[in-house]
Amino acid sequence: MSRLSEIQERIDKKIANVVVFGMGYIGLPTALFYAEKGLNVTGLDTNADLVSDLKNGITHMEEEGLDSLASQNLPRIRLITSYEEIEKADVCVLCLPSPIDKEKKPVLRFLENSIAELGRRLKKGCLVLIESTVPVGTTERLATLFAEESRLKLGNDFWFAHCPERVLPGKVVAELETNHRLAGGVTSQSTKLATAFLSSVFNAELVHPTSARVSEAAKLAENSYRDVNVAFANELARICAELGIDVTEVIQLANLHPRVDILRPGIGVGGYCLPKDGWLLVQSIKDGTFVPRLITAARSVNDEMPAYVFSRVQELDLEALSLKPIVGLLGLSFKPNVSDTRNSPSVQLVHILLAAGMEVIVFDPYVERDYGAKRAESLDELLDACEVVILGVGHDMLVRDLVEKDLSQKVFIDPNNSMPDLKNRVKKYIGLSI
Amino acid sequence: MSRLSEIQERIDKKIANVVVFGMGYIGLPTALFYAEKGLNVTGLDTNADLVSDLKNGITHMEEEGLDSLASQNLPRIRLITSYEEIEKADVCVLCLPSPIDKEKKPVLRFLENSIAELGRRLKKGCLVLIESTVPVGTTERLATLFAEESRLKLGNDFWFAHCPERVLPGKVVAELETNHRLAGGVTSQSTKLATAFLSSVFNAELVHPTSARVSEAAKLAENSYRDVNVAFANELARICAELGIDVTEVIQLANLHPRVDILRPGIGVGGYCLPKDGWLLVQSIKDGTFVPRLITAARSVNDEMPAYVFSRVQELDLEALSLKPIVGLLGLSFKPNVSDTRNSPSVQLVHILLAAGMEVIVFDPYVERDYGAKRAESLDELLDACEVVILGVGHDMLVRDLVEKDLSQKVFIDPNNSMPDLKNRVKKYIGLSI
Repeated sequence: MSRLSEIQERIDKKIANVVVFGMGYIGLPTALFYAEKGLNVTGLDTNADLVSDLKNGITHMEEEGLDSLASQNLPRIRLITSYEEIEKADVCVLCLPSPIDKEKKPVLRFLENSIAELGRRLKKGCLVLIESTVPVGTTERLATLFAEESRLKLGNDFWFAHCPERVLPGKVVAELETNHRLAGGVTSQSTKLATAFLSSVFNAELVHPTSARVSEAAKLAENSYRDVNVAFANELARICAELGIDVTEVIQLANLHPRVDILRPGIGVGGYCLPKDGWLLVQSIKDGTFVPRLITAARSVNDEMPAYVFSRVQELDLEALSLKPIVGLLGLSFKPNVSDTRNSPSVQLVHILLAAGMEVIVFDPYVERDYGAKRAESLDELLDACEVVILGVGHDMLVRDLVEKDLSQKVFIDPNNSMPDLKNRVKKYIGLSI
Repeated sequence: MSRLSEIQERIDKKIANVVVFGMGYIGLPTALFYAEKGLNVTGLDTNADLVSDLKNGITHMEEEGLDSLASQNLPRIRLITSYEEIEKADVCVLCLPSPIDKEKKPVLRFLENSIAELGRRLKKGCLVLIESTVPVGTTERLATLFAEESRLKLGNDFWFAHCPERVLPGKVVAELETNHRLAGGVTSQSTKLATAFLSSVFNAELVHPTSARVSEAAKLAENSYRDVNVAFANELARICAELGIDVTEVIQLANLHPRVDILRPGIGVGGYCLPKDGWLLVQSIKDGTFVPRLITAARSVNDEMPAYVFSRVQELDLEALSLKPIVGLLGLSFKPNVSDTRNSPSVQLVHILLAAGMEVIVFDPYVERDYGAKRAESLDELLDACEVVILGVGHDMLVRDLVEKDLSQKVFIDPNNSMPDLKNRVKKYIGLSI
């Protein structure tokens, strides 16, 4: 039996040893999902504290449905911290970070280091899947690196593919089940094997074979599309502010048009993916050739939003309003109802307010860190201390509580338009436009 | 009876005299539609030839359903060429051009001149509606101009609103019936009257009262949104070309994502509205304040597409391919299945090819002009003469005929990806990416 038919059979019979690398926001739900579907799953993370917590059933993630998925399936996963124990892996799934540095260049060393470690240890006949979002061409380069480190031969001893995750933070568990998946092999046999593996856990109709480069580009295009569309909403909000009209009404009326679907403007774009994926797409192109202007403009429009919200705060004449110069900022995560603060525009606003010498008090029911500000222990404590309040992120929980409060003496800044009917309930309202 | 209740009653009873100014792409279908709905309609255009043709039933427009609408309703419309005859108008609907000049500044003199003419002639108690797409604030300024010229008093003697059309060229007749309408008054009484008027011809649920400024902004936002999204598709196409991957496959796979809907890339953005409305929105803001970067980037991305397609043609080594240096360009209108060539990227490509000293032969079944190139009388004549063929616009009729032709000796450039399964049927295929 050839190595190809051997691994094909192990995949089809669901007896392949699957190792998921990285037990983070994507790796953990993925590993749990695979375990639920009956695969033999090992989860590897070099962060010993994280793995130790996982062994005790602690996940550190706010994800709808994750707790129940974890309580069922975490015990079925072998959790390890060292590459020493992965020799028997048939399928390796890398869910590792691929951030950008300060010059917006991709940082691929997490993937490269892991591939080098794998290359030195994996047996012949394995399938390596990259789930991370990476610049176009990266999976091919990682496959070459793997071949060099392992001295194994692509297409004979191992197969290699890009299979991006495409889930929405907060809805990861539900979307793992329902979203389409790409199987982007660096060779056609790799595509076939990756398709077989994904089809063994996902609905086969949701699995789409393609090339690694197209898979990488499709994933980057998805997030760049979102980023550009949020940037359009944000730019429109700034234009409406200049024109003294309500951007919410403008968008609502524009969206009556059958071919128009403008997103909601807000305090900016955060999270792990959107702020970097436009750059990963742009940086996929060799320097000195074509320079994409729209995607880069979108990035700067969105990056500027926290500073823009700050400029609206600055326009307040607090003395004339007889208000204390203390700003309360509610909500620190990058989007509602999650604890994730990665690249959070709300946190960036905290930094901007502090750098301007303002006194800042923060409260987020999901976030314990204070980011250099004072941290209130409750919504009431913050409202008691602050007459200027910014709703950086409208967690459902916060909005529900705020609706019940007396805000009539507050200057209330709601850049995401999260609060219903706020204008007539506050001393002064500041939205994104009027 | 006050003048307000008088005109309100005339509108409600459908006995108001309605004058539509401008018998062009929007004005004519609008006037016909109003006539069909039983209003007393006068159509005014200062172009005597146009009016004379209309009187003979000739419309000069390719619009689905227009001929039948016209044959029924053109005889019911009083067609005039002079402002002398409008004294009895109750409702004036201005469907006049509002282009931009070479510096991308709005040209409002058609509207201003018309408003001045109206001001000198209209009786007390009239409603003026601006259908044209205009920079935010324009309707208010036109109302002031009207008050000055007429010495009538806004809110007492006349009412004034912005009521933009929102129809898709090619589908104007169908969309007049189904699209939502905005009634954006410069005063709340104006909004009320405009709403009443629109509700007398359109389904009342489709009519949305708002302010003139919001109405103007919503219309500009709709078209800017479309323009930005086409620009994203075009920029993605150029990135994919740099990366040697097929943008069509990338978009198809990206669009499997539940929150992604990337449009089709193509030869550029044309027509009367999209190339200018982003500028009208940007130019609504006072100079020296906020400069929107995304909308302007979108404009330049889309404007560059004909030159980019030309650069792909230039990369061909015609001598090495033993081909004649004659380029055939099929389709000249700005979109498929219409005769409208305003701001057509395909026509721009003709100019670029000619300026580069190339011999160009054009053919478009809907367009008789040659734009300085030679004009073939048929598809066959063009195919006989040219070995390099560009499908600038994929009219259904052209695509249907091309599918039947032997293209095996052609270099075929299909920037809009209009032709099915073309790659294996031509000597050399050039799409937007590969």
